[in-house]
Amino acid sequence: MAVHIKDQKDQACLIVHGPDQPGIVSAVAALVTRNQGNIVSLDQYSSDPTGGDFFQRVVFNRPDLALALPEIEADLGKTLTRLGLTWTITDRSVPKRMAILVSTSDHCLLELLWRHRRGELQVTIPMVISNHTNTAEDVRSFGVPFFHVPSPPGPDKSHSEEQILKLLAGNVDFVVLARYMQILSPDFLDTVEVPLINIHHSFLPAFIGAAPYRKAKQRGVKLIGATSHYVTKELDEGPIIEQDVARVTHVHTATDLQARGAYVERAVLSRAVEWHAEDRVVRHGNQTIVF
Amino acid sequence: MAVHIKDQKDQACLIVHGPDQPGIVSAVAALVTRNQGNIVSLDQYSSDPTGGDFFQRVVFNRPDLALALPEIEADLGKTLTRLGLTWTITDRSVPKRMAILVSTSDHCLLELLWRHRRGELQVTIPMVISNHTNTAEDVRSFGVPFFHVPSPPGPDKSHSEEQILKLLAGNVDFVVLARYMQILSPDFLDTVEVPLINIHHSFLPAFIGAAPYRKAKQRGVKLIGATSHYVTKELDEGPIIEQDVARVTHVHTATDLQARGAYVERAVLSRAVEWHAEDRVVRHGNQTIVF
Amino acid sequence: MAVHIKDQKDQACLIVHGPDQPGIVSAVAALVTRNQGNIVSLDQYSSDPTGGDFFQRVVFNRPDLALALPEIEADLGKTLTRLGLTWTITDRSVPKRMAILVSTSDHCLLELLWRHRRGELQVTIPMVISNHTNTAEDVRSFGVPFFHVPSPPGPDKSHSEEQILKLLAGNVDFVVLARYMQILSPDFLDTVEVPLINIHHSFLPAFIGAAPYRKAKQRGVKLIGATSHYVTKELDEGPIIEQDVARVTHVHTATDLQARGAYVERAVLSRAVEWHAEDRVVRHGNQTIVF
Amino acid sequence: MAVHIKDQKDQACLIVHGPDQPGIVSAVAALVTRNQGNIVSLDQYSSDPTGGDFFQRVVFNRPDLALALPEIEADLGKTLTRLGLTWTITDRSVPKRMAILVSTSDHCLLELLWRHRRGELQVTIPMVISNHTNTAEDVRSFGVPFFHVPSPPGPDKSHSEEQILKLLAGNVDFVVLARYMQILSPDFLDTVEVPLINIHHSFLPAFIGAAPYRKAKQRGVKLIGATSHYVTKELDEGPIIEQDVARVTHVHTATDLQARGAYVERAVLSRAVEWHAEDRVVRHGNQTIVF
Repeated sequence: MAVHIKDQKDQACLIVHGPDQPGIVSAVAALVTRNQGNIVSLDQYSSDPTGGDFFQRVVFNRPDLALALPEIEADLGKTLTRLGLTWTITDRSVPKRMAILVSTSDHCLLELLWRHRRGELQVTIPMVISNHTNTAEDVRSFGVPFFHVPSPPGPDKSHSEEQILKLLAGNVDFVVLARYMQILSPDFLDTVEVPLINIHHSFLPAFIGAAPYRKAKQRGVKLIGATSHYVTKELDEGPIIEQDVARVTHVHTATDLQARGAYVERAVLSRAVEWHAEDRVVRHGNQTIVF
Repeated sequence: MAVHIKDQKDQACLIVHGPDQPGIVSAVAALVTRNQGNIVSLDQYSSDPTGGDFFQRVVFNRPDLALALPEIEADLGKTLTRLGLTWTITDRSVPKRMAILVSTSDHCLLELLWRHRRGELQVTIPMVISNHTNTAEDVRSFGVPFFHVPSPPGPDKSHSEEQILKLLAGNVDFVVLARYMQILSPDFLDTVEVPLINIHHSFLPAFIGAAPYRKAKQRGVKLIGATSHYVTKELDEGPIIEQDVARVTHVHTATDLQARGAYVERAVLSRAVEWHAEDRVVRHGNQTIVF
Repeated sequence: MAVHIKDQKDQACLIVHGPDQPGIVSAVAALVTRNQGNIVSLDQYSSDPTGGDFFQRVVFNRPDLALALPEIEADLGKTLTRLGLTWTITDRSVPKRMAILVSTSDHCLLELLWRHRRGELQVTIPMVISNHTNTAEDVRSFGVPFFHVPSPPGPDKSHSEEQILKLLAGNVDFVVLARYMQILSPDFLDTVEVPLINIHHSFLPAFIGAAPYRKAKQRGVKLIGATSHYVTKELDEGPIIEQDVARVTHVHTATDLQARGAYVERAVLSRAVEWHAEDRVVRHGNQTIVF
Repeated sequence: MAVHIKDQKDQACLIVHGPDQPGIVSAVAALVTRNQGNIVSLDQYSSDPTGGDFFQRVVFNRPDLALALPEIEADLGKTLTRLGLTWTITDRSVPKRMAILVSTSDHCLLELLWRHRRGELQVTIPMVISNHTNTAEDVRSFGVPFFHVPSPPGPDKSHSEEQILKLLAGNVDFVVLARYMQILSPDFLDTVEVPLINIHHSFLPAFIGAAPYRKAKQRGVKLIGATSHYVTKELDEGPIIEQDVARVTHVHTATDLQARGAYVERAVLSRAVEWHAEDRVVRHGNQTIVF
């Protein structure tokens, strides 16, 4: 998982998924070769070589990729469908469009904006949306548009969710909840059509729900953690992409845990976003394969 | 927390606990001085200097400690009781007596026996008790007595618990459950009168109860952990002494998690035992202070 | 080492250092008590209770500290000098003044500015000095003055060093080299009179000197590191305050190592700065005691 | 890198190495398929897709592998030689034969013997050789032959090296120096013909040579480490397989560092041995590719 973005012109990323069976690697490699591709990297995983699920990520170079892509896709359709496999292929020179939703805490947001400015995230950031305004100036100083969509206090968030959906529609490929402290409704999740990545401020499944640092202090844990996962309708239950921890002691108050945890959160979320942006994460039921 | 046991002849370890107030440090230090002690190390923690709880661990040298101890204890009684503080004082040249309870898994057991042989655990080991016999030969090769107390299959463990209590009574200062796969009854815990240290094979409070590695695989976590805690009547809920984690990926099966977890378990349990043996752990409600 | 700055009004931090001997703790504690102080935290270390060096850090509350400080200092002078001890006492409500020197890389600089804005560094930042101008806008957006002092290409840096010394003189309590890529002359170090903290982009003493990531790639190491240390006339040889590492593999190029290393560097430097600002670091020959 | 050894009957491990070029993956995969193999896992790395070095590790199932191996090797010879590639293929059901050389410290030795007994190292252990006798009883209790080859005090070790070479000749596939405190001569290394894996008790290249923990204490490092590497004629300069570190503080003496370091050493060496035994490590100049 190289940190720096290489020159990705004419690079395709192919994800293959389906029932494992002899001959898949050979079929995919032959397909790449006959389409004048040169494999740059290849990772694969099989949950069980006999009757299991097969996952593969192949990055290959192909001169004039954009022109050749329709033909390659047609070949993939013929070759892989016959083997019962599903696939996606992306042109790596086209960065994914990432929206960030955030509330008042800025640590995850600024980390993403700053890593992006350093050229370490293979994305564009068409918008940051917040139910608060405190981060607006910082966001715009990075040249990123900021939209304020207030979240009314009552239980009915349908109006603000509608506004968010309108902003996102057609403009983004995935959404990052960078400490967005509103629970999105099932309706929103049904409508949004792009994946959402969340950062939870605990080592899931410990301390599900609100106030995990306070709960962690009460339980007297010796490590605190953070978890980045895809959002599903089951709160804090979606497929985990990345987790990490930091050591704490009896000296630390709940407020200290929160302050230390912020550094774990921003690191964990950044890695999850980087991997998602590079098509390294494949969802498989409630789990992920991270290549 | 130095690993190697120093020459601890004539060293006392004093633990002080009670309501914080001005003058405690001064009173304790003056007491040590007027009893011809020389402070070797001093750690303290206050949950809040105003109205909080105060905890202190003082190690001091005092020539002819054994002879002087009654007089020092009398002085402590007078001086600290007046300040509303409780205290314990131990002669560090007298190692604690530690019993180990184990089932079939030997990794935690062997680690403790081996660290003890290296001189890294300040304890004696008067006995290992197991409901199985597979570890008997290994245990005895370390010169440690092994007792087999079978655990009958039904829910009533009173007979085997009675046998264990008879073996322990008067012979041990604390008990380590080194992957002992029986749940001890409230009656046992009421009767045993010495602290018990357990190792749980998950990052508590995640995956409480049985089969944590299987649950961890199902949840798709990216880190597995282990937790050492004092045993209370609430299963897996006692005060945590130490925790640690290891990184895993989608490649690892539940069996792999168990194998990798074993290395975390033995490290976490060993540190907890070392700290308890050196009077570094102070229980405080459902939490611990680890000096 | 709590992350959040507590209300430090009327808090003093006393550092004591000298030959270990019976009665020091008692003498210091009694001194605090008779000056109406209440000890908030106390850490101490003795390199050897018999004939070794003794180090102590005591934080205490004292109403109207500023008024009482001269009297406390007089008492310290009398009491501790008699015991052959040296001491410093600081009013914790007065933050240290920190200058940052930086070249083109902004990762350490921005991390310090951002942690300061979050209230996590107990300092003021009167100036950032750089031999480049690329970070000027970012620095000023944090409300911090930026001074450009170009470094001429030749070996003689005396003119630029003079300018830096003029800017610093009387205005700062310590200096942080946050990836400042100029070697400061012995003359500069003799004149500056305040401590300097550097971040070196390797796990010292491995890869001393220039281009450590390139050397690390050539040697094929599996971990890269960063080291924060006080600056002395011996390049990369000063007392180490903090170190940390990150895992790398054969996949990573020297450029990747540099990108990953940046995250270790900013974390290590931030911790070193935080601890120095809180008087937690005591220099002892070429080593440090970190309380 | 799964910890548990799966049923490896009829599994082959193929390592391919040579100049990168389009079509390698396809050629190898087709070869496996036409020899009735089913790929179980595949890892590859290219130092540069254009003009770089290509490395691949393929594990595949093939019924009646032992019978088919000559034919597969002939096919490999034809197919891969044409592409300028070198290769090795091994039957994974045949464990490598590992000798252990050790001096007096037993921590690495016992860890290897114990992991082997748990079924976690895919090796047989035909012998342990030591220049001391203190570990003999422990070694034999694991059912492993122990040979004592004293090392005379003078500089000429040729006689003892000859004896070791006689014991090894034809009997082992690799040798592990599990804290063997003798420097092996260039003659020995020329003659031995199998790879040697060493554990060095520092984070190489820091503290090369003798007494690294003493040097680490003098330098005041905040982390200690261990490095496992292949042995070459350049002392402590061979290709690194694995490294790890542990945190230490000013409190720890050089003896403490040594005691703590022992746990890092045994973990690092065990991983290196596990990976070597599973053909996961490919040497490339002075570096390693670890799949």
